[in-house]
Amino acid sequence: MDRLIEAIRTKKNPTVAGLDPKLSYIPSFLRKAAYAKYGKTLEGAAEAILQFNHGLIDALAAIVPAVKPQCAYYEQFGWQGMRTLEATIRYAQQKGLYVIIDGKRNDIGTTMEAYAKAHLGTTEVEETQIPVFDGDALTVNPYLGSDGIQPLLPICKERDKSIFALVKTSNPSSGELQDRTFADGKTLYVTIGSLCEDWGKESRGQYGYSRVGAVVGATYPAQLGELRK
Amino acid sequence: MDRLIEAIRTKKNPTVAGLDPKLSYIPSFLRKAAYAKYGKTLEGAAEAILQFNHGLIDALAAIVPAVKPQCAYYEQFGWQGMRTLEATIRYAQQKGLYVIIDGKRNDIGTTMEAYAKAHLGTTEVEETQIPVFDGDALTVNPYLGSDGIQPLLPICKERDKSIFALVKTSNPSSGELQDRTFADGKTLYVTIGSLCEDWGKESRGQYGYSRVGAVVGATYPAQLGELRK
Repeated sequence: MDRLIEAIRTKKNPTVAGLDPKLSYIPSFLRKAAYAKYGKTLEGAAEAILQFNHGLIDALAAIVPAVKPQCAYYEQFGWQGMRTLEATIRYAQQKGLYVIIDGKRNDIGTTMEAYAKAHLGTTEVEETQIPVFDGDALTVNPYLGSDGIQPLLPICKERDKSIFALVKTSNPSSGELQDRTFADGKTLYVTIGSLCEDWGKESRGQYGYSRVGAVVGATYPAQLGELRK
Repeated sequence: MDRLIEAIRTKKNPTVAGLDPKLSYIPSFLRKAAYAKYGKTLEGAAEAILQFNHGLIDALAAIVPAVKPQCAYYEQFGWQGMRTLEATIRYAQQKGLYVIIDGKRNDIGTTMEAYAKAHLGTTEVEETQIPVFDGDALTVNPYLGSDGIQPLLPICKERDKSIFALVKTSNPSSGELQDRTFADGKTLYVTIGSLCEDWGKESRGQYGYSRVGAVVGATYPAQLGELRK
C-alpha cells in the first residue's frame, strides 16, 4: 500500500477516480469514429470506451493518484471489453497512476490463485511468466473466509500489490447481512474487519497500512469509526 | 431452472461437468498446434484451451446435461482467455448443453446490471441488443444483500436464465463466517438461504424450483438437509 500512500502524498489528493464507462456518456464524435472502424459492435463500443478512457486519464493523471476501473462495465462488452480493460490499465500505469481493479473477485484455493494471477500476478505459458491485467490492487469479496484470501497474499508480497476486501458496503441492503450481530456481540462486518487485520498483519508497510485494505462505504461514517478502533 | 431439470431427466444424469482448464492438463499435441499458430503467448494458451474444451464437450454432450466453466481459469489468460470462454459457451450450447458460468459475480445497482448483461443478458450498442457471454445461469456472491441480486431477476425472467447464490461453500474456512450464529439463532448461511427463497419466490417453475438456486457444498450434507427444510 506504500505506493498508493506515496502517490496520495505527492499529489496532495486522496481521490480515486472511477473508470466505469457507460456508452451513453461517451461523446458522439468518439463513438462515431470507433463505429466507422469496427461497426456498431461490441468491438466498436469497446474501442470508443478505450479512447474515452485515454482522454480521462490524460486529464486526471496530474491530479489524482489512482484510478479504479470497474470490471462489470468492461465485461458487459465481452472479451472486447476486457481487452479495453487491459489497455486502460496499461495506459493509466504509463501515466503514473495506481490502478485498483474493482472486480470483487472471490473463490478458493487454486481457483482464487487463478484470479490472483489474472489481476495482480503473472500466468505461466510453458516456461514464460506473462503479466495479464496486472493492476496494482484488486477488490475482493471475503464471504468464503481465509481460503479465498490466502491465495492472494504471496502474489501481493512478491509483486508489491494489494487487495481491498469488502467489509461494510455503501448500498441500502448492506445491512441485511453485514449489520447482523453474531452471538459473540460482533456484527458480521466487524468480524470481517478483524479477519482483514489478521490477513494483513504480516505485511504492514512504512506508513502503517498492510496489503489488505477494507472497503467501507462512505455512507456509513459511524461504522468506519468503529472499524478504525 | 426448468430447462436444467429437463436436461437432467432426459440424460438421466444430474452431473455438471466443470470446465476449469489448466494448461498443464492439456495434451501436448494440442498445445503444440496452438503455439505453432499463435506462439507461446496468452493467445496460444487460450487457443489450446478452446480446442481441449471442444474435445471435452464432444465427449460429454450426450452424457451430461450441463457444463460449468469457471471464469477464473479463463480470466488468467486475459481477454484472450475470455474470448475462449465465450467460444466455449457457444459450442456447448450448440451441442445442447446447459451452461452455468461460475463467476461468483457480485456488485450493486447498475454495476450488477452490467454483470447481468455480460453473463445472462444483452448489451445495447446504440440501437442493437447484443448477447455477450450469454450463459444459461451464473453463480453469484450474496454478501451485498438484495441490492446485489435484484438487478439479475428481470433479466432471468425475460431471457429464461437462472442464478445460483453461494450459501454454504465447500471450503474448510467456510465456517469462519458462514457457520456463525446471529442473535436470532440462525446461522449466516441459513439467513442467506432464506433470502434466496425470497428472491426466487416469484419465479417457481413447473418442477418447483425457482430461478434462484443455492450453492451448498457437498462436503456439508447436514447443512444441505437443514437448508432443504
